[in-house]
Amino acid sequence: MTNKEKIKAGIIIIGNEVLSGRTKDENTSTLALWLNSMGIAVAEVKVIPDIEQIIIDTINEYRKKFNYVFTTGGIGPTHDDITAESVSKTFQIEYGFHKEAFSILEQYYKPGQFNDGRQKMAKMPVTANLIYNPTSGAPGFNVENVFCLPGVPSILKSMLGGIENSLVGGDPILSDTINLRTVESEIAKSLTEVQNKYQDVEIGSYPFFRAGKLGVSIVLRSIDKDKINQCKFEINTFVKEKNIEIVENN
Amino acid sequence: MTNKEKIKAGIIIIGNEVLSGRTKDENTSTLALWLNSMGIAVAEVKVIPDIEQIIIDTINEYRKKFNYVFTTGGIGPTHDDITAESVSKTFQIEYGFHKEAFSILEQYYKPGQFNDGRQKMAKMPVTANLIYNPTSGAPGFNVENVFCLPGVPSILKSMLGGIENSLVGGDPILSDTINLRTVESEIAKSLTEVQNKYQDVEIGSYPFFRAGKLGVSIVLRSIDKDKINQCKFEINTFVKEKNIEIVENN
Repeated sequence: MTNKEKIKAGIIIIGNEVLSGRTKDENTSTLALWLNSMGIAVAEVKVIPDIEQIIIDTINEYRKKFNYVFTTGGIGPTHDDITAESVSKTFQIEYGFHKEAFSILEQYYKPGQFNDGRQKMAKMPVTANLIYNPTSGAPGFNVENVFCLPGVPSILKSMLGGIENSLVGGDPILSDTINLRTVESEIAKSLTEVQNKYQDVEIGSYPFFRAGKLGVSIVLRSIDKDKINQCKFEINTFVKEKNIEIVENN
Repeated sequence: MTNKEKIKAGIIIIGNEVLSGRTKDENTSTLALWLNSMGIAVAEVKVIPDIEQIIIDTINEYRKKFNYVFTTGGIGPTHDDITAESVSKTFQIEYGFHKEAFSILEQYYKPGQFNDGRQKMAKMPVTANLIYNPTSGAPGFNVENVFCLPGVPSILKSMLGGIENSLVGGDPILSDTINLRTVESEIAKSLTEVQNKYQDVEIGSYPFFRAGKLGVSIVLRSIDKDKINQCKFEINTFVKEKNIEIVENN
């Protein structure tokens, strides 16, 4: 382990469509994998409804608790898109037309097509930094350590490259996976012993069922590649002793 | 609207595998759809790591804030499965072998196969109510208003039927969807007017992109079928005026 403080992020999924079960959240996974590659760990995720006071309270909680906060959803043109106004209130910054955002959208749409709904997407905290949107024009925005992104997964993905320079990460979180043709209870005891020995490696055990066969994925996560390798060696040793088959392709 | 108080649930997803981005949570959607059919709304979801104190604090927060709390994950046989012990500490109930759970598992496994790891799955708050598992033997459990389920989606699904009688719901939350071949900004203003008129109906607007074509799903949610129908009528009226195509099959 280095002496660097661990850099943590919180994710706020804003959207009744996730709470109602209609939509499965895919953005947490996208954000987490991307953040991990920069050495930022996701410490917590909250899914909250489209209610202004809850959005404000949650952002206030997370921006103090974590180094970075990411929100997804609620920045479109309809009545249920209230993230931008809620963030303005959170930071007590005027909610109005952001000059650059307005100009981007004005150029994006054909003359006569830049209607009220589309203009709403240029309204946000007026001093926010923009997060450019190469897919569909309407930008996200950033105030202090809070980054506001859209809810549509493909659009969100396309916007991440534009933020990377704004984030200060730690050592990248590395991971390695061993897939075994076994069940968890066969390896639980040995795995506990390895985990107790390697406190710097987070060892996860996840059962899977594929092509009619049971298996367990052992995931090793750490910022220290050597520790992961030592850990993997010890796991492979008990796996061999127990005559457990290793599944090459997961 | 009836005078019944709204029944609310909170969901706690316990699992580093979701926070690391490795696994996409599917259980929120399963639980939310099932709860909605019984008139229980999911008010909030939190994804938290496998850390005892965080699990205890989150359960304590949610069990006071919501009528029902559901946890998923962390009840298997390995070292990272710490939900049962954390719930015991939350309620200050002895953590040990649950007699009925032990007996179920003893019968489930072949003689000689009921090893330490498998026995661990019988350890929980000793006075908990069991939630039976028709898929893989190992039960979940319930203490007061907290229901602890496994993280594997197919197993979780198979256990829900066994809990229904323990829950007191409200009026079922009904929903209807109108799929339109348009973009949100074309309908934003008209939709806001309808939403302002029907405060008892939650109107959500969700862009989609399928088979190379853009569209918007309008989702109407309420416990009042008549209000949904009135709302739908007004939306269909402005849709006709604007010459927007309705997409039959979403």
